[in-house]
Order: sequence, then C-alpha cells, then structure tokens
Amino acid sequence: MLALYTYWRSSASYRARIALNLKGLEYEARPVHILKGEQKAADYHAVNPQHRVPALVHDGRVLTQSLAIIEYLDEQFPQPALLPKDSLGRARVRSLSLIPACEIQPLQNSGTGVHMQAALGLSAEQIAAWRVHWNTLGLQAYEDHLVADRETGRFSHGDTPTMADCFLVPQCYAARRLGIDIDNKYPTIARIEAACAKLEAFQRAHPDQQPDRA
Amino acid sequence: MLALYTYWRSSASYRARIALNLKGLEYEARPVHILKGEQKAADYHAVNPQHRVPALVHDGRVLTQSLAIIEYLDEQFPQPALLPKDSLGRARVRSLSLIPACEIQPLQNSGTGVHMQAALGLSAEQIAAWRVHWNTLGLQAYEDHLVADRETGRFSHGDTPTMADCFLVPQCYAARRLGIDIDNKYPTIARIEAACAKLEAFQRAHPDQQPDRA
Repeated sequence: MLALYTYWRSSASYRARIALNLKGLEYEARPVHILKGEQKAADYHAVNPQHRVPALVHDGRVLTQSLAIIEYLDEQFPQPALLPKDSLGRARVRSLSLIPACEIQPLQNSGTGVHMQAALGLSAEQIAAWRVHWNTLGLQAYEDHLVADRETGRFSHGDTPTMADCFLVPQCYAARRLGIDIDNKYPTIARIEAACAKLEAFQRAHPDQQPDRA
Repeated sequence: MLALYTYWRSSASYRARIALNLKGLEYEARPVHILKGEQKAADYHAVNPQHRVPALVHDGRVLTQSLAIIEYLDEQFPQPALLPKDSLGRARVRSLSLIPACEIQPLQNSGTGVHMQAALGLSAEQIAAWRVHWNTLGLQAYEDHLVADRETGRFSHGDTPTMADCFLVPQCYAARRLGIDIDNKYPTIARIEAACAKLEAFQRAHPDQQPDRA
C-alpha cells in the first residue's frame, strides 16, 4: 500500500506525484496544508519530524526527500524506468535533477521566504526578486545542458520521461508563477515541458488537479 | 583516468574527495580557485558551463553535481559500497545525504552569500546569522534521524561509511567554521564525525590537506 503526504502547491510533492503516476501506481493522497502549518502538527510530526512534504509510506515504512523517494520507486517498481540503464546516463539524469533540487528550489521555497521576511526584514518585492534570480540562474544552467548534450531528446534525457522531467516540470510551474518567460528564455525547456504536459501522468500530478487545491 | 576539479574549501568538492578516497581511487586534483573567480574563466567554462565545483572527469567524460558523481563512482567501482544493497537502506542514505545537499549547503555557500550582500545589501553579521540558522535546522534534522533510526551504527548508516558520511563530514566542517557547537548540540553527529576522522580516506580529503589550500 502506497500513501503520499502531499501539498498541492509543493513542488517537491509534485515531483513525487509525477513519478507515481508515470509508474502507474495507485496511492492514497494525504494532504498536509503547509501554509496553515499542518506540517508542524503532532500527527504529522510522528510521520516526518522534519515537517516537510512529501513523505511516502510504503508498506508501513516512511520515506522522505523527493529524490530518494523517486529512486526508491524506480528500484521497487522498475517499469517504466525513470533512470537510464547506463551509468553515464544515470549520472546525467541525476545531475539534471539536482539543478532544481539543490540550486533553485531550496532558495525559493515558502519556508525560505518566511525566514527572509521574519529574520532579515526583507520586503515581498525583495524576496520575489531573489526567487527570480535563482530560478533564472538554475533554469539557464538546465537549458545549457539540454542544448549542449546530444542525449537530450523529446524529454530531458532521451525520448521517454525520466526523473529529470519529474524535477523540471514542477520547477517550471514555480517559475511561471514568478512571471518568468520560459517560452522565450528557455526554448528547449519549454519544448520538453509541453511534451510532458501532453501525458496524463503529468496532467494528473498538476497542482490544479489535487483534491486539496485551495 | 580520473581527474577532479576541486577547491580546497568547497564542501561539495570535499564530498567527492572522500568518496574517491574511500574507493581507493587515484585521481588528478585540478584546483579551481573559487574566491578568485577561476570557475568563470574560459578554460573552466569549457569543462562545466555552470561554473561550479566539483567536476569529475572519467575517461574523457565530465560529470557534475557531487551526489551524481558519488552515485556514479559507486556504480563504476562497486567496492567498498557507499550505498547499502537493500532499497530501503539506499533510500535512507540518499535521504540523509540530501539534508546537507538541499537543505543546508545551497543556503549557506559562498555564492549565496555574495548575492545576499550584492543584491540585498545585507551585512556580514546578517549573512553569518542566516548561515547559522540553516546549519542548525539541518543538522538538528540529521541528528533526529540518527537518534530515531535503528540503522544508525558506527557511521550514519551501519558500521561502514556510506555516501551519507561523505555529505555529513564536510557540512560539519562548514558548521564548525560558523562556530556551531556540534559536540554539545548534536552528540550523535559528533560521534560519527569522530569515527570518520580516524579513517585515512577522510583525513586525506580534508581541506587542510589539499594542495591548493590558501
């Protein structure tokens, strides 16, 4: 039995939802309302003392961190594969995934914004500009990789979706909310985002399709 | 042939150095002086257009992102293993590694500090407090996992070093530079850090032992 603690707008939850859908796995969605602070409630603390989403429950065991969750799903449910078979390809897919995971999302998520306001007294405009900066830098790096590498195909790596696309699409969602012009600035990313949007696995994982959408 | 583009004080480079040493792999160290901006020079741009260290060169192919590099090394040179054989164990090691990788280091590295000063006009004191905040939060989360999980052993996962220790030890180095009292606040981390420090692989990877040390 699979259950996912998720928040509709959390990009890390969105990544895990895409992977579950690509694998064709049924799961119980357990919404945690981040902006209302439900992640700090006692019942969720018992699930994940780090108070972050997503958390995956598989046969009673709790797993955290979206990248670790997706790698686990790929090991437990190998088809369709979300990582290539060759070691260099796997390294490339992980490396691409880590651009949103390490270089964009941590710097622009809601918890970081809250702390920027509370501890540093920064304005909403300053925080928005900060978020745009890291999205721009990271998406440009991702675009540069896509353009430079011949492994780029219909998707980030080859012609089927991989873990990298599970990370890219939610980051595009966040970047578009910030007003970043992905279509004109990052044409390869925009092309791959559009290819993903045609797949039901990505459609059903979209924030707007979640039961806890505000 | 293995070569590593590295900077002595970069914690991401430090992670890769530990993994290479644990595997007993000889590599050519190619120093890139981050504070002098050498990562932006044309010759390094040709290696990694993202201008970040580390980058690993293996038989002419360039790999980036420390976590992807370490997973690659573990696939190519399986002994000694840096990830457990069981899928839940692998997920736990990845999940622990991702705490420094995603939740601490991106928020406190030198590039982030430079942008906080340049774009937001923050003082050195504000930036230092910001760095302490994210180290404290992340190391507490790591400590909580270690205390809660029975898989914790002499090292972060079991009684031999894993990828998680390659991430933990460089983060402790950064936290100590910030004056964080690891020994008293995070006793399990301190115990594991001490166990690692006894191993030559960790000793030789230490910033102070690098040829490019300032």
